[in-house]
Amino acid sequence: MEYLLGEFLGSLFLILFGGGVVANVVLSKSKGNNGGWITITAGWAFAVMIGVFVASSSGSPQADINPAVTLAKYFLGVYDSLYYVITASLAQIAGCFVGASLVWLTYLPHWKETEDKDAKLAVFCTSPAIAHSPSNLLTEIIGTIALIFGIGAIVSSGDIAAAAIPYLVAMLVWGIGLSLGGPTGYAINPARDLGPRIAHTILPIANKGTSQWHYAWVPIIGPLIGAIIAATLWNTIL
Amino acid sequence: MEYLLGEFLGSLFLILFGGGVVANVVLSKSKGNNGGWITITAGWAFAVMIGVFVASSSGSPQADINPAVTLAKYFLGVYDSLYYVITASLAQIAGCFVGASLVWLTYLPHWKETEDKDAKLAVFCTSPAIAHSPSNLLTEIIGTIALIFGIGAIVSSGDIAAAAIPYLVAMLVWGIGLSLGGPTGYAINPARDLGPRIAHTILPIANKGTSQWHYAWVPIIGPLIGAIIAATLWNTIL
Amino acid sequence: MEYLLGEFLGSLFLILFGGGVVANVVLSKSKGNNGGWITITAGWAFAVMIGVFVASSSGSPQADINPAVTLAKYFLGVYDSLYYVITASLAQIAGCFVGASLVWLTYLPHWKETEDKDAKLAVFCTSPAIAHSPSNLLTEIIGTIALIFGIGAIVSSGDIAAAAIPYLVAMLVWGIGLSLGGPTGYAINPARDLGPRIAHTILPIANKGTSQWHYAWVPIIGPLIGAIIAATLWNTIL
Amino acid sequence: MEYLLGEFLGSLFLILFGGGVVANVVLSKSKGNNGGWITITAGWAFAVMIGVFVASSSGSPQADINPAVTLAKYFLGVYDSLYYVITASLAQIAGCFVGASLVWLTYLPHWKETEDKDAKLAVFCTSPAIAHSPSNLLTEIIGTIALIFGIGAIVSSGDIAAAAIPYLVAMLVWGIGLSLGGPTGYAINPARDLGPRIAHTILPIANKGTSQWHYAWVPIIGPLIGAIIAATLWNTIL
Repeated sequence: MEYLLGEFLGSLFLILFGGGVVANVVLSKSKGNNGGWITITAGWAFAVMIGVFVASSSGSPQADINPAVTLAKYFLGVYDSLYYVITASLAQIAGCFVGASLVWLTYLPHWKETEDKDAKLAVFCTSPAIAHSPSNLLTEIIGTIALIFGIGAIVSSGDIAAAAIPYLVAMLVWGIGLSLGGPTGYAINPARDLGPRIAHTILPIANKGTSQWHYAWVPIIGPLIGAIIAATLWNTIL
Repeated sequence: MEYLLGEFLGSLFLILFGGGVVANVVLSKSKGNNGGWITITAGWAFAVMIGVFVASSSGSPQADINPAVTLAKYFLGVYDSLYYVITASLAQIAGCFVGASLVWLTYLPHWKETEDKDAKLAVFCTSPAIAHSPSNLLTEIIGTIALIFGIGAIVSSGDIAAAAIPYLVAMLVWGIGLSLGGPTGYAINPARDLGPRIAHTILPIANKGTSQWHYAWVPIIGPLIGAIIAATLWNTIL
Repeated sequence: MEYLLGEFLGSLFLILFGGGVVANVVLSKSKGNNGGWITITAGWAFAVMIGVFVASSSGSPQADINPAVTLAKYFLGVYDSLYYVITASLAQIAGCFVGASLVWLTYLPHWKETEDKDAKLAVFCTSPAIAHSPSNLLTEIIGTIALIFGIGAIVSSGDIAAAAIPYLVAMLVWGIGLSLGGPTGYAINPARDLGPRIAHTILPIANKGTSQWHYAWVPIIGPLIGAIIAATLWNTIL
Repeated sequence: MEYLLGEFLGSLFLILFGGGVVANVVLSKSKGNNGGWITITAGWAFAVMIGVFVASSSGSPQADINPAVTLAKYFLGVYDSLYYVITASLAQIAGCFVGASLVWLTYLPHWKETEDKDAKLAVFCTSPAIAHSPSNLLTEIIGTIALIFGIGAIVSSGDIAAAAIPYLVAMLVWGIGLSLGGPTGYAINPARDLGPRIAHTILPIANKGTSQWHYAWVPIIGPLIGAIIAATLWNTIL
């Protein structure tokens, strides 16, 4: 059961850093205010690096911190039970929820200073630049396929040091954010979106707006479809 | 024949990420809109890293994903047949074409929201900041020589881990973009420009402009000349 | 006693680079003026990298350059005497004082060209974006917990090369700055704030303002509390 | 005599990339125009990385590409003759001259489009943000001490892979640029300033201004003094 702690803690740090950098860029009066996309994507890259290091050092050597990655590995034969996939995913969602709550606390005085309710939501979860569900879904599918293939390619490099993987995967995610994150904000991870969206709904955030639950299915279903396609392609052609 | 799959897939990812970051920066309403040159060059760097990892893990250990690199290695004796050079180049062009098509899909709702036709073309292929064919050709030649020499210098470092090479080559390409990319947008790779330019011509992109085929020879011929000069110099002096 | 030299010199370089990048961004007429949060956080990341390399190569293999890290390691059993913690901390504070003095000299002609007294103070020590002591303290506590957990997770990665640790810790601190630095400027290190604040008070800086000693306890107490919590959590759950 | 080729080629690439990124940021109509200090310092970092890789792979395993580094190593006992220091320095200056000439060719159509003569000079050599010779000299001395100490600290890390050193030194130089480069543009290398300044004087650059030879002694003497102080301190305390 140790993997549950690892996936929980790794996902917590993923969102503490990942939600944190969005807070820094979009909340009023923050020192990183208006830092732009390079700042946000860099922050998410290091969020992944830390999340993976924490997960793997606290009980989950696989360090997925993402139900889509866990699901893909299930189809690739890394895990042999759906029980693992489901429990790990729940731990990941719980970790993301707690991480988002810590972001709220870290930036506590900034919420009431920020007028823009969409900005406050963006600290927690994704929303599309142009709302168009089929296209948004497709973007999340492509982004997740790139994530799974990228991780697979990095990990299957012959002589890679285990400690280098979190860093290289972080650079991969930096690339996904820079290149494929423009239309939907690259959830590419159902837990990353769902856990913090629940936190946004529950927490007493000053002057918050809607949690936009109508969109929540896209960053859940898209990454899961992407994971299945990626695993199938990987099994077929490689 | 496995190298064809590797070169195809690696080139596909190269353009999915490389075209993607340009789309993010230049297309209207994208979250990375107006991110500047640091964003574009960072995105291309990670595009190279992922492309090389994917190519080498899917059948092409040499992972050139660039006909100029393949040609230079031919002159350096790495490959002993022009058949390899030609078939690998065709696979690279095909991969770049498919990658560009995936960028179009990833950013599907953004094309009709974007007025600027030159911006839309820039997602696919390069164009000169100041049109002047001999100078533009020279810039591409110098950039490609820097690429070939840089790769050669990195790879010939004694004790380098194989898994570190894609990252270091990515940093090299980041440097080329920052330093030598100003006048022509650093194609330094005939497939990177030709495949996506074909995609721009064929795909039903909303409200697109000309594909500027009159310039297409520069980012093809320039890198090939650069590759031959670089290989000759490397053979002569090192 | 060699560790005192190492901690002193490492802390000196930490502030020479860390204070330096703030000076570059906030002082008038500097070439990096107005470079934004990505510039500041990148500069602090490399400051940590150099500081750790210098500390470990000049007598302190542990290379804490931060009393909060030293204190956390004491609770984790790395050090067995409070004498070590106290003497190392004093060396760290002294190093930070001298480093800040060197920043003042490096940017000597820029102080009198700069009107903004808060900007001048920001080169030396932190101040909150929104003054609210309990929240500011909480932010520093969370940031320091993230630092200690992050370092622990990186160091406990099985096969990591010793020379990779300063780089990965630097990337961790880059992440903390990007993600958690928005409300208080991420001191996460009592010496980093106290030493330079003393320097700001003592040095004949042209046209300087108050050193804001009323806030000085937050970046001292916050990181120390964070260190104790982090060490306790690490001992309990890992 | 092979080291002469290595130092020449490494220095050539140092300036091709280092001068190139400045050209990209300051010359009119360039794609990286107005990219800011983060762009310039990133470009110089990769310039150092490539320069060191090229130098070490083409005959100079020490790969100094900087007379101040060569001089410091002489005082540290790495070299035992001043003949080596002088010949290596001349090769470095020659390489920087040729590199700057290639930058001129790479950006050929941009010179006459650029009005600002100081901007054109900045592509080649450094100038102070605030002219004040003693302060400017002090800044160059401090920056060079940080360079020499930083290199020493990195290289003396026990188990470092040789191929990692160029990258880590590049990150060190990125840090120096971000943190200490504000007042004088961080020459920290006499050849880096002198070779390109000669090129600026000789080359038929469209509509160029003065080469500001009155300042040229600062980025030569400052780094040499810094090298001697750094070597003396290193010998004394470490």
